[in-house]
Amino acid sequence: MQDWTGMIEAAGARIGPHVRRTPVMDAHLGGHAVALKFEHVQHTGSFKPRGAFNTLLSGDVPGAGVVAASGGNHGAAVAYAAAHLGHRARIYVPEMAGRAKIALIERAGADLVVLPGAYANALEAARAYEAETGAMQIHAYDAHATVAGQGTVMAEWEAQGLAADTVLIAVGGGGLVAGALAWLAGRRKVVAVEPRLSSALNAALQAGGPVDVEVGGVAANALGARRIGDICFDLAKTHNAVSVLVGDRDIEAAQAMLWRDLRQIVEPAGAAALAALTSGAYRPEPGERVAVLLCGANPSSLAFAD
Amino acid sequence: MQDWTGMIEAAGARIGPHVRRTPVMDAHLGGHAVALKFEHVQHTGSFKPRGAFNTLLSGDVPGAGVVAASGGNHGAAVAYAAAHLGHRARIYVPEMAGRAKIALIERAGADLVVLPGAYANALEAARAYEAETGAMQIHAYDAHATVAGQGTVMAEWEAQGLAADTVLIAVGGGGLVAGALAWLAGRRKVVAVEPRLSSALNAALQAGGPVDVEVGGVAANALGARRIGDICFDLAKTHNAVSVLVGDRDIEAAQAMLWRDLRQIVEPAGAAALAALTSGAYRPEPGERVAVLLCGANPSSLAFAD
Repeated sequence: MQDWTGMIEAAGARIGPHVRRTPVMDAHLGGHAVALKFEHVQHTGSFKPRGAFNTLLSGDVPGAGVVAASGGNHGAAVAYAAAHLGHRARIYVPEMAGRAKIALIERAGADLVVLPGAYANALEAARAYEAETGAMQIHAYDAHATVAGQGTVMAEWEAQGLAADTVLIAVGGGGLVAGALAWLAGRRKVVAVEPRLSSALNAALQAGGPVDVEVGGVAANALGARRIGDICFDLAKTHNAVSVLVGDRDIEAAQAMLWRDLRQIVEPAGAAALAALTSGAYRPEPGERVAVLLCGANPSSLAFAD
Repeated sequence: MQDWTGMIEAAGARIGPHVRRTPVMDAHLGGHAVALKFEHVQHTGSFKPRGAFNTLLSGDVPGAGVVAASGGNHGAAVAYAAAHLGHRARIYVPEMAGRAKIALIERAGADLVVLPGAYANALEAARAYEAETGAMQIHAYDAHATVAGQGTVMAEWEAQGLAADTVLIAVGGGGLVAGALAWLAGRRKVVAVEPRLSSALNAALQAGGPVDVEVGGVAANALGARRIGDICFDLAKTHNAVSVLVGDRDIEAAQAMLWRDLRQIVEPAGAAALAALTSGAYRPEPGERVAVLLCGANPSSLAFAD
């Protein structure tokens, strides 16, 4: 049994000087009163630096530096954190990460390798590099230091006075929602939102354990995990996470709403949690106070109509 | 002598249910530690609804409704506030407001008239409509109810724990900075930032009183006031506002930085205050804690390179 509270508090102290305390606000969106956290304004445009900094600051980084495979946001975060702390970073990225995310990683100063095909190819190359050089592999979601780092989002939100019965969080490999579940430990309801076309947690909950799934859809480069992390699965079972699926059109509608009504640009993954609310996939009870975590702002294009 | 504190507190109570309490955060941008307020996520993408709601809620609105002339943001705010409170609104807009702002006003449900030529033509038409119909004219900046409404931004920011010696604020006609000066009453330094190509306050301070100026540049549809408001001029003199000018390229660089480093889209006017800091036009003393108000997010296009 992990002491998650202690681990997340330690992570918060460790990464505090290096990450942003992201803003919160209350809004009405699509007819719903909702508490929001703008975690998409974190360094590199997603929550991922929290886990990356926590991992880098938790152990000794070898001279060979760090290596990661990523659909984009994790790679950008690892590159940023490594550069910030003076370590070398090699990042393997599948082409489907897209131009914007690849540019983001390059800008952070990483040694970047773009590979054709799926995320699995990038992961395989990252593992080969790790074996060859001794670089530290930083897993995107299924590692305790990663999950504890992501858990600081929810600890911070509560310290900022979060008033909600229920928190909606987008799920890919499950690092972020695992961190939230670990921190909250059942004190608030957690709704785990996945795109219908990339729903590894939902499949695992139905199968009774993590299983491989097909991935696709508009949020695939951020939420397209082939298999949910074991840590996330265990926490979701323990704390009765509610699994909800949303369609790609609902995600795009929520993304457009965030620009139109709140002047926030998020990527599809960053709008998925809101889409559960605005599409009706998740219907709060009367009086239930709902919070939505905005988690990523690296869209592949900025082609929003006004 | 106005009781500005009382007027702004009353405005805050009046408009509280209708406007957003906008989020705040600390960040490092361009090498500067800076406290930010995201007032650009206010309804309609600018601070303007504060003054519009305060005006509409302060008096009896005639059956003919309200009328305003606007380069865009004020018109959108008046249209939004009028629709929200059940009043008719006629808005006159010069073509230079641009497609995005015109669409914003249309969406708010106003009766919109787009006129060729400069802002002055729109203002003349608005005055004619007022005389003809008895509609209530809502001035964009040089009216006490407008200034008191805009002053709630600074009151709110202080209630949110603002820790800054100096606040940088963009100036067009001067309603926003006047509200800040009125609320702060010299308790913090206020830096009034204008584009070099639209600098009515700077010209007035040099001339010893409001004078007509030529206006142009990238922020003209929001900051291009031909003459600073008398209320603003008096408050700027009384409280020793520091006047700083920035170039259009500096504004665009700050705008790009806000997207790149903080994932915020603002219009040129919304980036002008930050530009004073990042361009070096305003250089804080060692130890001076600086705050920047982000005030508008209705750019004419979303063509940001990543």
